[in-house]
Amino acid sequence: MTRSPVLVDLKFDPQTIANALQKAFPDRGSINLADPVNSGADLADVDYAILWKPERALFSRAPNLKVIFSGGAGVDHIMDLAGLPDIPVVRFVDHSLTTRMSEWIVLQCLTHLRQVDAYRKQALDQHWHELPQPEASEITVGVMGLGVLGLDAVAKLKTMGFDVIGWSRRHKTIDGVTTYDADNLDAFLRETDILVGLLPLTPETTGIYDKALFSKLRQDGALGKPVFINAGRGKSQNQADLTNALSSGVLGGASLDVFEIEPLPAEDPLWTMDNVVITPHAAAASDVRALFRNVETQIARLERGEALEHVVDRATGY
Amino acid sequence: MTRSPVLVDLKFDPQTIANALQKAFPDRGSINLADPVNSGADLADVDYAILWKPERALFSRAPNLKVIFSGGAGVDHIMDLAGLPDIPVVRFVDHSLTTRMSEWIVLQCLTHLRQVDAYRKQALDQHWHELPQPEASEITVGVMGLGVLGLDAVAKLKTMGFDVIGWSRRHKTIDGVTTYDADNLDAFLRETDILVGLLPLTPETTGIYDKALFSKLRQDGALGKPVFINAGRGKSQNQADLTNALSSGVLGGASLDVFEIEPLPAEDPLWTMDNVVITPHAAAASDVRALFRNVETQIARLERGEALEHVVDRATGY
Repeated sequence: MTRSPVLVDLKFDPQTIANALQKAFPDRGSINLADPVNSGADLADVDYAILWKPERALFSRAPNLKVIFSGGAGVDHIMDLAGLPDIPVVRFVDHSLTTRMSEWIVLQCLTHLRQVDAYRKQALDQHWHELPQPEASEITVGVMGLGVLGLDAVAKLKTMGFDVIGWSRRHKTIDGVTTYDADNLDAFLRETDILVGLLPLTPETTGIYDKALFSKLRQDGALGKPVFINAGRGKSQNQADLTNALSSGVLGGASLDVFEIEPLPAEDPLWTMDNVVITPHAAAASDVRALFRNVETQIARLERGEALEHVVDRATGY
Repeated sequence: MTRSPVLVDLKFDPQTIANALQKAFPDRGSINLADPVNSGADLADVDYAILWKPERALFSRAPNLKVIFSGGAGVDHIMDLAGLPDIPVVRFVDHSLTTRMSEWIVLQCLTHLRQVDAYRKQALDQHWHELPQPEASEITVGVMGLGVLGLDAVAKLKTMGFDVIGWSRRHKTIDGVTTYDADNLDAFLRETDILVGLLPLTPETTGIYDKALFSKLRQDGALGKPVFINAGRGKSQNQADLTNALSSGVLGGASLDVFEIEPLPAEDPLWTMDNVVITPHAAAASDVRALFRNVETQIARLERGEALEHVVDRATGY
């Protein structure tokens, strides 16, 4: 049996991908579309593709794909593609990616709890002054999105002492955590001092973080004002509403890793707003070595006759 | 039986203390030396004192003290006092204080891991650029000081994914953590990428963080350069050596809550150095309500004939 090479079309750093592919897929090889030598390669017999923002003509060039693997945790960049064939789309779920996402989320929650912005300004003025300080247990962190990433963040935030609640569209039960679903979003928001966004991008979540939502967050919590942290998808935030909520004081701060338009344009006011942390979609970078190992494992499962893991539900889009 | 009021001499925010004392010690009352009305009070019959930087004449004014309670986690400010009577000195150990200290330590470790300083500079330049990123498991955090605070920090840093090792003068065993003692400090330092200082101040730990120590930290770790985090006592750091290690690149960064002289003088170069976080001895502020509850509980134990907890060992000074 001849094994078809794995098609790789990832708009990541080309050198990183080239290096990682040298040791990946030893039994079947790969076709890396980032390498100009492959620009006209025959893809007719390719079974498996790993994609992140693939070229437009891909599905007509590779009409016999059996499985698509996402290059990242999100799959909206694939589900929106014109000509997407009706084959399994597999999300990238990886221990390293999950760990890094929780590092970033816990860092951001502690940054706002411990008033890092205020202390940094004092340091620039050589000003020694202790600020009143709630402890983590006085702050309720509300996590929206309770998939693999959300559950790991919830557990780690609880370990750090925060009061944590969760929200997902369909109800989920988590031991020791109060959870809410689509029927009681407002009740969830009313309890929330720090809102952590980890939602997938779907038609229902597009623009979900808007003026109405921000105005429902708890306004008299121990931080004074609510804080918004988004590590999910930029198109879930109505960025004009977000910017207004920050400048008008509806929100007291934010940590943003994702934006409606990425890269965030240089003239965007969010870059330099008070108490707003900006990172360049770097909260949980996909480690491509882990990605390729993951795809190898999944292909091996499939070819042994086992089911693929983390297949996207076409009805919900994630 | 007449119960003597509790003597309170705490150089904290006077209003905070006055407020907390209104509800504290209902069965015996208190004498708050921060209140001018008590400046000449007769302290001859006082049994218990809660102290933080007390007035010089205190022990001659109150010659019949039975127990001294420290207003904070450290006791060096008491053990050094002239005329200290040979009575039990009790450290303040409190869940809230421990939790806050771990908040600060985990925040600082994540701040250096996730290159907060570099991303902030990029944001000020409106520059979108993802930096290469080790994950927590690639970084060894070495915690010096394995008391209540050190053990809590170790557990939480492990939960966040860091590789964690510990050091204490006398050997301690911690499940799942490699520990070192006075006989193998160099081996501990060689493994350490982020050094977390939580040592009590004693003659042995005065100036322990010096040029020689910094030069032994791992120089080729995943962060590039080692990082020093001190939330213990300022006089444990040779601050001239620390400043030199930061400016010469022996250290890649630092987070400092304590200093040889506090407040840190306005002209000190540490205030505005690159990749150095300064907080004003605020890592784990003592909550005076918790402090007073704690003292009440300990007095009740003693008067029931039980042993006091967390009594300082005069031989080691902590």
